[in-house]
Amino acid sequence: MKIIKMLHQRHVLIFLLLLGYYTTALSQSGYGLWLDYKKVSNAAILSQYQKQIQSVYFPGESETLDRAREELELGLNTLLGTRVNFSSTDSNKASLTVAKFDDLTPKTQKKFGKIEIASQGYYIGHDDGNIIITAKEDIGILYGVFNFIRLLQTEQPLENLALLDAPKIDLRILNHWDNLDGTIERGYAGKSLWKWQKLPTYIDQRYIDYARANASVGINGTVLTNVNANAWVLTPSYIEKVAALADTFRPYGIKVYLTARFSAPIEIGGLSTADPLDPKVQQWWKTKVEHIYSKIPDFGGFLVKANSEGQPGPQNYGRTHVDGANMMADALAPHHGVVLWRAFVYSEHDATDRAKQAYAEFVPMDGKFKENVILQVKNGAIDFQPREPFHPIFGAMPKTALAMEFQITQEYLGFSTHLVFLPKLYQEVLQADTYQQGKGSLVAKVIDGSLDNHSISAISGVSNIGSDLNWTGHPFAQANWYGYGRLAWDPYLDSATIAEEWLRSTYSNCENFVAPMTRLLITSREAVVNYMTPLGLHHIMDTDHHYGPGPWVSELPRPEWNPTYYHKADASGIGFDRTKQGSDAISQYADPVAKKFGQLDQVPDKLLLWFHHLPWDYKLSNGHTLWNSIGLHYQKGVDQVREMQKVWAQMTPYVEPLDHKQVSMLLNIQLQEAIWWKDACMSYFHEHSKLPFPKGMEKPKHSLKYYKSLKHPYAPGI
Amino acid sequence: MKIIKMLHQRHVLIFLLLLGYYTTALSQSGYGLWLDYKKVSNAAILSQYQKQIQSVYFPGESETLDRAREELELGLNTLLGTRVNFSSTDSNKASLTVAKFDDLTPKTQKKFGKIEIASQGYYIGHDDGNIIITAKEDIGILYGVFNFIRLLQTEQPLENLALLDAPKIDLRILNHWDNLDGTIERGYAGKSLWKWQKLPTYIDQRYIDYARANASVGINGTVLTNVNANAWVLTPSYIEKVAALADTFRPYGIKVYLTARFSAPIEIGGLSTADPLDPKVQQWWKTKVEHIYSKIPDFGGFLVKANSEGQPGPQNYGRTHVDGANMMADALAPHHGVVLWRAFVYSEHDATDRAKQAYAEFVPMDGKFKENVILQVKNGAIDFQPREPFHPIFGAMPKTALAMEFQITQEYLGFSTHLVFLPKLYQEVLQADTYQQGKGSLVAKVIDGSLDNHSISAISGVSNIGSDLNWTGHPFAQANWYGYGRLAWDPYLDSATIAEEWLRSTYSNCENFVAPMTRLLITSREAVVNYMTPLGLHHIMDTDHHYGPGPWVSELPRPEWNPTYYHKADASGIGFDRTKQGSDAISQYADPVAKKFGQLDQVPDKLLLWFHHLPWDYKLSNGHTLWNSIGLHYQKGVDQVREMQKVWAQMTPYVEPLDHKQVSMLLNIQLQEAIWWKDACMSYFHEHSKLPFPKGMEKPKHSLKYYKSLKHPYAPGI
Repeated sequence: MKIIKMLHQRHVLIFLLLLGYYTTALSQSGYGLWLDYKKVSNAAILSQYQKQIQSVYFPGESETLDRAREELELGLNTLLGTRVNFSSTDSNKASLTVAKFDDLTPKTQKKFGKIEIASQGYYIGHDDGNIIITAKEDIGILYGVFNFIRLLQTEQPLENLALLDAPKIDLRILNHWDNLDGTIERGYAGKSLWKWQKLPTYIDQRYIDYARANASVGINGTVLTNVNANAWVLTPSYIEKVAALADTFRPYGIKVYLTARFSAPIEIGGLSTADPLDPKVQQWWKTKVEHIYSKIPDFGGFLVKANSEGQPGPQNYGRTHVDGANMMADALAPHHGVVLWRAFVYSEHDATDRAKQAYAEFVPMDGKFKENVILQVKNGAIDFQPREPFHPIFGAMPKTALAMEFQITQEYLGFSTHLVFLPKLYQEVLQADTYQQGKGSLVAKVIDGSLDNHSISAISGVSNIGSDLNWTGHPFAQANWYGYGRLAWDPYLDSATIAEEWLRSTYSNCENFVAPMTRLLITSREAVVNYMTPLGLHHIMDTDHHYGPGPWVSELPRPEWNPTYYHKADASGIGFDRTKQGSDAISQYADPVAKKFGQLDQVPDKLLLWFHHLPWDYKLSNGHTLWNSIGLHYQKGVDQVREMQKVWAQMTPYVEPLDHKQVSMLLNIQLQEAIWWKDACMSYFHEHSKLPFPKGMEKPKHSLKYYKSLKHPYAPGI
Repeated sequence: MKIIKMLHQRHVLIFLLLLGYYTTALSQSGYGLWLDYKKVSNAAILSQYQKQIQSVYFPGESETLDRAREELELGLNTLLGTRVNFSSTDSNKASLTVAKFDDLTPKTQKKFGKIEIASQGYYIGHDDGNIIITAKEDIGILYGVFNFIRLLQTEQPLENLALLDAPKIDLRILNHWDNLDGTIERGYAGKSLWKWQKLPTYIDQRYIDYARANASVGINGTVLTNVNANAWVLTPSYIEKVAALADTFRPYGIKVYLTARFSAPIEIGGLSTADPLDPKVQQWWKTKVEHIYSKIPDFGGFLVKANSEGQPGPQNYGRTHVDGANMMADALAPHHGVVLWRAFVYSEHDATDRAKQAYAEFVPMDGKFKENVILQVKNGAIDFQPREPFHPIFGAMPKTALAMEFQITQEYLGFSTHLVFLPKLYQEVLQADTYQQGKGSLVAKVIDGSLDNHSISAISGVSNIGSDLNWTGHPFAQANWYGYGRLAWDPYLDSATIAEEWLRSTYSNCENFVAPMTRLLITSREAVVNYMTPLGLHHIMDTDHHYGPGPWVSELPRPEWNPTYYHKADASGIGFDRTKQGSDAISQYADPVAKKFGQLDQVPDKLLLWFHHLPWDYKLSNGHTLWNSIGLHYQKGVDQVREMQKVWAQMTPYVEPLDHKQVSMLLNIQLQEAIWWKDACMSYFHEHSKLPFPKGMEKPKHSLKYYKSLKHPYAPGI
C-alpha cells in the first residue's frame, strides 16, 4: 500500500512481489476466476502478440465502453507484460482498434460494410494488419473485448481473424436461490454475495467482479432471490437496495430480476387475497411494478415458482397458471419486463407418475400465455438428477417461449466437493432431438427460439456462486459457471471446447496439462452418474439435504419424495416402468423418441431403468446381467475417480502448490463418497436381489445397517 | 500459475506483477490482515535492516519451529525485498540467530544466562552485533518471530534491542458463536470459517491463515462452537472433524475447545437425564471426554452456557452451577482440560435488577469450584453495551479463577458497518479499579490471576471473524481482533499503542497517516457511545437483531428484555436508579467504588444514568441540563463521525484506492445510522420530556412514528 505514494503513477504500477514458498493464500485463492490474467507463457506467442499489439485506438464514451476499455487495458498489460498505449482520439498509429461500427474510419466501414453483426454481437477482423474489434452496440464492444482477451489467454493465433459472433439466446440468466437472511438454498460455497444490510450505500467489490465474470461469458441477467420467495424484497427499502445492485451491473449489460412471491399482495400489500383475477390484486402488482421501474428503468422482470412445493399460486384461488402468469405479464408489459414462470410442478394429490405432471399441467395451456411470459422448464422432468432424459415439454409447446433451467449448483451431484464438469450434461440435453418437428428438432433449437420462431428466448442456470474465497467452493466448479455462460451464449458449443478454454484461461496452456485435463473434465460427468445413479436410476439420495445415498428411504409423507418410489427395487427386479404397461410417461415424447425409449432393444443403457422395470437377471447388450451391470457401473464410477486422482497427481508442474493440494483433498473426499455411494446402494439393492456382488466389484466395507445409520442433519444447502 | 514451471525454483519466486489502475480486488481484499507483509518503504530504515539482517541461523526441528521459520522467511524476504539466507547448521555467518536457549552457543548462553524467560515467552537481544531471538519452548520462538516481524513492519530500530516478553494470561481464547449449519450468531462477516461437511479431509487454507493471525498476536485457544450449543458436535464423526482442525492449529500453539450442551447425555447419549449428580451422567461425560482426548490429546476443554436464556443446565435438576461445573471438571481433570463456565445468567423469575443477578448467583459459590473450573464473566453486568461499568463479580470471588469475556463482534456497536476501535473499551474495563483488595485492585489483575494468586488465568473474546474476503466485514474490525489478542497477551497495554501498531502493520508507517488515524481510532469508541447510549444509557436498541434504536420497545414478554426497563424514561426524568434508594446494585461493588457510583457529585457523567434516575432539568457539572446534555451528546456522536469522514478523506495517499473507497462507503452508512440513532432516541425521549431540542442539536428528520415503523426482519447475526 505504501507503493502508491512512492511511485505516484496514476495508471500503472510495477513492483516486485517476492513470494516465499510459503505464502498466504491470496495469490492462490481462486478469487480471480478465469479472469486472473497472467503473462503469456509461450515466449514465441508472447513475442508475436507484443509485436502485433502495441497501441490501441478505442474511441467512444459510455459506462459500458469505459468498463471495456479498463478490462482491455488490464488484460493487455498483464498478458503481454508491457504497457500498451491507449488513445481515444488518434487512430493512425493503432495496431488494435476497438470501436463501434459508426466510429470506424469510412474506409474500414466500407470494407466491413457487408458484415451483419447481430444484436449484442461483435466482429473481430483485420484491416491492413490492424486488428479491429467492432460492434453495433456498446455491449457488443464489451463482449468483443472479453472474447479477444480470451483469444490471448488461450494463446490463439491472431492472424486471419474473422470472427463474427453473437449470442443465440436473448436472456442468459443466473438464478440465485439466495434468501434475504444470507443463506443460499442448495448453496455450497458460503453465503449469499448480496450484503443486504450494507446496501444500498456499500457496494462490495465482489459485485463488480461478479459482473465482470458474467459479462466475460455473456450472461446478461441475474435473478437475485430464491424461487422459494420472500415478499419482503419487494418493499421499497429493498427495491432501493436492488436498484444499487442494478446500477452496479448495468455497465456490464446485466439486468436484475426478482422472484415474485404470489401472495405478496397479502403479505406486504395488506390485501386479503392474491387472486389474479381480482382487480385490486392486479392494480397492486401494476403499482408495485411501476415503483420498481421508477427505481430500476431496465428491470428484467419476475421469476415465479407458483403452486409448487408449498409456494402460493393462482390455484389457491381456483385460477390457472395462465391466469397468474398473464396478470404479472400485464403489469410488466408496459415496461418491457418479462415473467419467467416455472413449470416445475407436481402435486401430492396427483397419483400419476411425477415425471408426467408438469407436461400434463402445462402443455394444454400452449398458446394461452401473453407474449412476455416465458415458461421456464427444468432440463428433466424430475429434478436435476445426474442424468435425466430431456423434459418432454421441450418441443411440445410450440406457441410458448420456453426457457431452459439448468442447475449449476450441485444439489444432486456432490455439492461443492465433487469435481463434475456440467457442460457435458448440458450439452447432452441441448443436443437431444425432440423430433417434435421431425428429425433435428433439438432441444437447443427449442430454447433459442429457432424451432418455433419465437421473438424472445431465455435460459436460466441455478447459480453455484457464494461468498467463498474462490466463489464456488470447488475450484473446478468455476468451470460450471463459465461453461453455463458459454452454452447460454451458444447452445451448440461442444463441451470439450469449453473445457479446454476454461483450463487454458484458468491454469495453463501447456499441452501436457490441457489434453489430459480436458479428458478428465469430460469424463467426470459420467463418473458421477456411474457412482451415484447408473443405468437410469434416479432420485435415490438421502432426504432433505440430498447428501449421500438413501435408496432405502420410504417413509416420507409424500410418496414421490421417497427414493423407493423411483427405483422400485423388489425381489423381481428394479426400475420405473414408464412404458405403456407402466405410467406411460413415454407417450409424452414425440413418436420416434417414445418408440426408442419404450423398446428394450432401442433404449440406451444409460436410461434403461428410467423407463423400464426389469428382472435382476435381465441380460444387457454388453452380456452382463442387470444386477452385475449395476454393480460394475458403480465400480466403474469409483475407478474413474481414482483415475482422476492419478491424472491430477501428474499436474503439479502446471498448478500452484496450494491450488493443487486443495483439489487433491477434494478428490480424496470424492473418492470416499463415491465408494460410500457404491457400497450403500449395492448393499441395499442386494437385500432385494439376494445375488452375489459381481466379480470385479469391491465389496461393501460396512453393513447396510451402518449405511442406514449415517445421519447428516447439518449438511449444507438446506 | 505458469510461472512455476518456468522458473523451477523451489523456494522463492520472483516475478513482475503488472497492475492496471483497475484491478481485481485480489491485492486489496484485506485477506492478508496485518500479516500482508510489504517491503519497508522508508529507504534509510530499509537499508539499515538489509545491512543488519543478511543471514539467519535457525536450528531445531518441530512443527512449530518449521512454521516459525517459514513465517520469518516470508517476512524477511518481503519486508527487506531481498533473499535472506537461512541455515540450520552454520551459526558462524549469521546476523540473526533464532534458537531455543538450549541451542544457543555456550558463549551466548552464558551471556543470556540470567535472563529469565517465562513460559511461552521469548527474548530478543544482541550478542556481538548478532540479533538473537530465543525462548525456552518452541512456541516462545514462534511468538518471538512474530514480534520481531512486527518490529520490522512498524519500522522500529533494531539497535539496543533487549526485549523480554511473555504473556500475562495463560489461556487467550477466541469464542466463536458458530453454529453447525454455518451461520454465526451475532456474526456480521459472512459464514463460519469451519466447513464441517468437508472436514476432516479438506483443510481449508483459511484455517492455516487463521492460525497464523492468532499466533501472531498470541491467541492460543479457540472455542469452535456457539455457547448456545448443539450436542451434535460431540458425536464421533464431528470429533474427527474437530481433531483435524486441532491438528492444523497445533503447530501454532492453539488449542481447540468446544461448547458442551448440558443436555447432551440425553440428546446424543440416550440417557433420560442430564442430572450432574447422577452417576450415569457423570460416567457419560467421563467416557465422552476420554474419547475426545483419544483423538485430540491437547484438547482445551469445554465452554458452557448453562441455565441462561433457555439453555439447559444443572438447575433443571435442582442442582447448582457448582454441581454442573464440577462434574465436567472431574471428567476433564485427568486430561488437564478446563471448564469455562459462563456467569452470564439472569432469570425471568427473578424480579430484581438484572444487573444484580449474576453476582447474587455466583459470589456465594466462591471457593466451591474445582481447580480446573474458570468462571467466565462478561465485562459488564448487562450485555456488551457500548459502555458498562465493570462487572461487580470482578474482585469479588477471590477463590475462583475468573476469565474476562469481551465481545469482539459488534452486536451492539454497529455490526460490521461502524468503525469502532474496541481495545479502547477493553482498556477502560481492564484498568478499572475494583478496590476489592484496596486501591490498585485492577480488573486486569483479577484476570491475570495476580491479585488473588491463581495458578490459572484466562480471557475470552467473542469472535468477529467470518468467511468475508477480509475476515471481519469492516476492514477496521480487523483491528479489534488484533487488539483483543494484544490485550490478552498483555492486559496493561495502552490501546493507543495497539492502534498505532495495527495501523502501521496494515496500512502505512507514514506519520501523516499514523498520527491522525491513531486519534481517529481512539476517538471512535466514544463516538459510538455518544450517538447510541450517552451518559450511562444502555440496552435501548431494537429487539432480537439489535440493529438500530428501539428505546420505545416495551411489550416483550420478559421485562428485562425491554429497553424501557433500562432507561425508565417518564415525565419526571430518565435513568435506572441503582442506588440504595433503587435496586441497590451499587452495593455489589467494593465500598469506595459503590460510594463513587452512588453519589451524584462523584459518579462520572459517562455512567450517570446507569446508576441514577434524574429529572430532565437536572444540572450536570458542565452546566447543561440533563435533557440538553443527552441531546448534545447524541449530536456530538454524529459530529465525531463526520470528523472521522474528514480525516479519512485525507488518507488517500496512504491507502489503496479500493480499500479507501470501501471504508468511505462504510463511514457513510455509519453517519446515516448515527443520525438515525440520534433522531429516533431524541424523538422518543422528547415524548417524555416535552422539552425543546437543545440548541446545537440538529432536529430529527422524521416523526417518531416513522422511526417506530422501521422494521429489519432480516438484519444479520440472529
